[in-house]
Amino acid sequence: MSLRPNGGGALGMLNGTMPRWQERVEANPVADFVDYCLRGVGQVVFMNNPVTGLLILVGMFIASTWLGTAAIIGLVVSTLVGILLGMDRALIRAGLFGFNGILVGAGLSLFLAPEWDWVVIVWIVLVSGFSSILMATLATLFATWNVPPFTLPFNFATLIFLVAALQLANGQLGPLVNPDAVGAVGAEIETTLRATETGGDVGNLEGWANAVMRGISQLFFANSLVAGSLIIVGIAVASRIAAGFALVGSAVGMLTGLALGADGVAIYNGLWGFNSFDACLAIGGVFYVLTYRSAALAVACAVATAVLFGAIAAFLVPWGLPALTLPFCFGTLAFTIMKYTTKKLIPVEPEDITTPEEHLRRHRAAKAAARDGSGAQTQPA
Amino acid sequence: MSLRPNGGGALGMLNGTMPRWQERVEANPVADFVDYCLRGVGQVVFMNNPVTGLLILVGMFIASTWLGTAAIIGLVVSTLVGILLGMDRALIRAGLFGFNGILVGAGLSLFLAPEWDWVVIVWIVLVSGFSSILMATLATLFATWNVPPFTLPFNFATLIFLVAALQLANGQLGPLVNPDAVGAVGAEIETTLRATETGGDVGNLEGWANAVMRGISQLFFANSLVAGSLIIVGIAVASRIAAGFALVGSAVGMLTGLALGADGVAIYNGLWGFNSFDACLAIGGVFYVLTYRSAALAVACAVATAVLFGAIAAFLVPWGLPALTLPFCFGTLAFTIMKYTTKKLIPVEPEDITTPEEHLRRHRAAKAAARDGSGAQTQPA
Amino acid sequence: MSLRPNGGGALGMLNGTMPRWQERVEANPVADFVDYCLRGVGQVVFMNNPVTGLLILVGMFIASTWLGTAAIIGLVVSTLVGILLGMDRALIRAGLFGFNGILVGAGLSLFLAPEWDWVVIVWIVLVSGFSSILMATLATLFATWNVPPFTLPFNFATLIFLVAALQLANGQLGPLVNPDAVGAVGAEIETTLRATETGGDVGNLEGWANAVMRGISQLFFANSLVAGSLIIVGIAVASRIAAGFALVGSAVGMLTGLALGADGVAIYNGLWGFNSFDACLAIGGVFYVLTYRSAALAVACAVATAVLFGAIAAFLVPWGLPALTLPFCFGTLAFTIMKYTTKKLIPVEPEDITTPEEHLRRHRAAKAAARDGSGAQTQPA
Repeated sequence: MSLRPNGGGALGMLNGTMPRWQERVEANPVADFVDYCLRGVGQVVFMNNPVTGLLILVGMFIASTWLGTAAIIGLVVSTLVGILLGMDRALIRAGLFGFNGILVGAGLSLFLAPEWDWVVIVWIVLVSGFSSILMATLATLFATWNVPPFTLPFNFATLIFLVAALQLANGQLGPLVNPDAVGAVGAEIETTLRATETGGDVGNLEGWANAVMRGISQLFFANSLVAGSLIIVGIAVASRIAAGFALVGSAVGMLTGLALGADGVAIYNGLWGFNSFDACLAIGGVFYVLTYRSAALAVACAVATAVLFGAIAAFLVPWGLPALTLPFCFGTLAFTIMKYTTKKLIPVEPEDITTPEEHLRRHRAAKAAARDGSGAQTQPA
Repeated sequence: MSLRPNGGGALGMLNGTMPRWQERVEANPVADFVDYCLRGVGQVVFMNNPVTGLLILVGMFIASTWLGTAAIIGLVVSTLVGILLGMDRALIRAGLFGFNGILVGAGLSLFLAPEWDWVVIVWIVLVSGFSSILMATLATLFATWNVPPFTLPFNFATLIFLVAALQLANGQLGPLVNPDAVGAVGAEIETTLRATETGGDVGNLEGWANAVMRGISQLFFANSLVAGSLIIVGIAVASRIAAGFALVGSAVGMLTGLALGADGVAIYNGLWGFNSFDACLAIGGVFYVLTYRSAALAVACAVATAVLFGAIAAFLVPWGLPALTLPFCFGTLAFTIMKYTTKKLIPVEPEDITTPEEHLRRHRAAKAAARDGSGAQTQPA
Repeated sequence: MSLRPNGGGALGMLNGTMPRWQERVEANPVADFVDYCLRGVGQVVFMNNPVTGLLILVGMFIASTWLGTAAIIGLVVSTLVGILLGMDRALIRAGLFGFNGILVGAGLSLFLAPEWDWVVIVWIVLVSGFSSILMATLATLFATWNVPPFTLPFNFATLIFLVAALQLANGQLGPLVNPDAVGAVGAEIETTLRATETGGDVGNLEGWANAVMRGISQLFFANSLVAGSLIIVGIAVASRIAAGFALVGSAVGMLTGLALGADGVAIYNGLWGFNSFDACLAIGGVFYVLTYRSAALAVACAVATAVLFGAIAAFLVPWGLPALTLPFCFGTLAFTIMKYTTKKLIPVEPEDITTPEEHLRRHRAAKAAARDGSGAQTQPA
């Protein structure tokens, strides 16, 4: 329908949502399935692009083979369940029944133990399958306000399993789930940036670089500079604007953590960045046409999301559970549900979302058409 | 409107929703009131049938006279409040302002103490009255997605009172409400089936039979094989399909508990069955026309609901509160709100719900009519 | 549109929503801004009246200069953010982007420490600004059911910050935030009315008067008989009916606390009154036209809101967080969302709300017009 003018040559073809590629692979069921699985990976960062997805997966495998494998299991199962349930094939093709599954697989690979365990794999299969039911249900709920459920299906499915596992003999919980009494421990927080609890202080530049790039990788449960870099390259393949806001968002998350006086180990390892980067990217060009105002709103959303990370992490202390991407979901929902209450921002409807660049092009074309249209009235017939 | 062809004879008249009986009792206000109170009991298991309700009540009284009495107080009060508030008489007649109240009465009789205490009775009156306000409010909320609020009014009203009672001198909390620190106690869980914490192991067959049938009775806060059997007979009076899915659901809940490694005492006493059985019954024939696919979905919903039971029970540990039927509500909501996102399932609209058998009949009649209609075009006029 | 017949003279002009005053100040941007900030203060108690707001502010300053100053910072910032975001100017003029901000400022001034600290002021600015985003979002969510979000934006924004602050070095939490293990402490509760934990018992009359009037002031985080009296006078300037229900609601909240056996210090200091008074005022004349039935419903809502206060306070014990006005929000939502399910109550649509007195006048005028209209048919032409 909409023209997606990709630049010439092979590299240009990778740009945007790659519609010509999709038309080509649709003929082959296996290639088609692989295509929308990879698009599902990209959809975690709102990029409906298989090359983005591939680069992210490579980053995950570089961080850990088990992480990458578990992620693929979740991705494939949730996509298959979407097909089995008879969900809209266009949504499946856009990867919308894969992006929760990959996060379920990746998340459970980190919080359950041991690695490569068949019981853990069974739980990944069941929980990622359930995430597709929740995707259909939450998409229906949120359609009332014309917003998507973001990664809430992943968060709900994963947290439901993890909290239940606390009191189950076969729950396979790893050491990262660690219930504790809540304390007002503010005064005891060690805020200097360092790699581990016992490690020495690192310089500011080293600390900031790690916080920002590990923040990018932590969205996919990797803690790796290389994975972070590959993910940024993957996003940039589809959209340079999105890649820019990802970096800005991760930095804003880190700075918010520093300003609030958060634990320096958590900041160094990117825990204050991964929710904010995805929220910043979503507001800065994806759900609103990029303007100075939406760029400012994206930064505000990254700050709010970082505070939400602190809040949800502290709220979950009694059960020892991770905040996952709940901060991103609630932060981004808060800044998108309000979209019709202001005339100073230009929302992009969920069904029209492609890339920030194309949103800008469309908006400029619409403005130019409106101008020409009104101009035409003054011209002789 | 819809024809409800009940089989001949007195027994046949008990079948389904008993519309001819209802027409007869409407003339007498007292009989009418008793009729819709009894239908309210049946509505806990989606059976708009006074005989179902009567058999369930008998089961509750056999389990405990105090339980049965408290349940009737809640049932009558919540129905009266529905009338006083001026709610739609058709909904009241269908028992929709009674099924939360009976559960409030039954639940508080178990978690407050002592028995036959007038302060406890006052709390039952107030909380079951409030459940009718919540019913009106939550029904309005969920009507947006064309699903009912299930037993959420009971859950919210009861949990609000129980959590408040923790810090009230007149809260009358019994020993079953027992706040504790959360621990990742998975490894210490004793999973063998047994009747009490200190009791000896029971054989598998004895354990399974108790788990399934006590699971049926636990929905009504009874822990009794006899009550469970009476409830199944009561459901079967209205619908054999529903009775079948009740048993399947209770068994699936038990099996999920066994597979996850849950506490063997909890499983034996039916705590892993009662939410799953009601969820399974709801999906397998009530909210979807019974097909192989909706039967499979009902089993999946029973599994998800069992995991939710584990999750909500663990989440509530810091306050020592019971999960009540929140797992059933959230599990069934997750599997019904998605109903319009798939073409592989045939949803039954809430206002059209009668019994699984009639849903099947109607669906077959509609298919036959569609076939005849298209056939008619090829016949000479 | 609607005639607002205010009584003659200068005092009469203060009555109701003061539309003639608003027309006069609109010409001067500064006076206009001050006007809708003051209306924002009044909107906490549903009074769109700047004199109400002014008297409340005076009461807050009398209670504590820091409280009043912090409240004004929050009020001004949240109103400015509403303007910056390009929100509907009519809503801003009615004070709807101020009433959450003033509560954020007042609340954080109490729960953060020390007083007059610039870091605390920065947090007040950020959190009250965020409350305006949440106002736009939650108003959109709740518009689906034609109810406003009440003070949920204030509650969510403030609680998110406070819970996060538990684990932040710069969180500035004061001693009132005090995490603890939950216990079923009912039996140990000291229920006699007294001013402080260690203070002696006070007489019933002294205790009741303090509970009711401090309950009025606690809505604005003041604990003062004088502030409570000024607030009642402020409400009475706009509406005598509202002032009456405020006093009734505060008394009902206190009585509910006494009946449930709540801590006597909390009751004496108005903690059982402030949510109930606002809820009672909202139901008794604001969201429903005042009738005997809506008056009874207002009392029931005050009781339910008081129980909710106990419940939410106990739920938040593990994090040591205050219930704020969540009980008021949930209680009032429960009693307003149901408004279309009954024909025995006459709801006032949110966009038509002015004062209980005018709602009554309009309703009587509509009834009279209907009577005259039908009467006209029997008269000769």
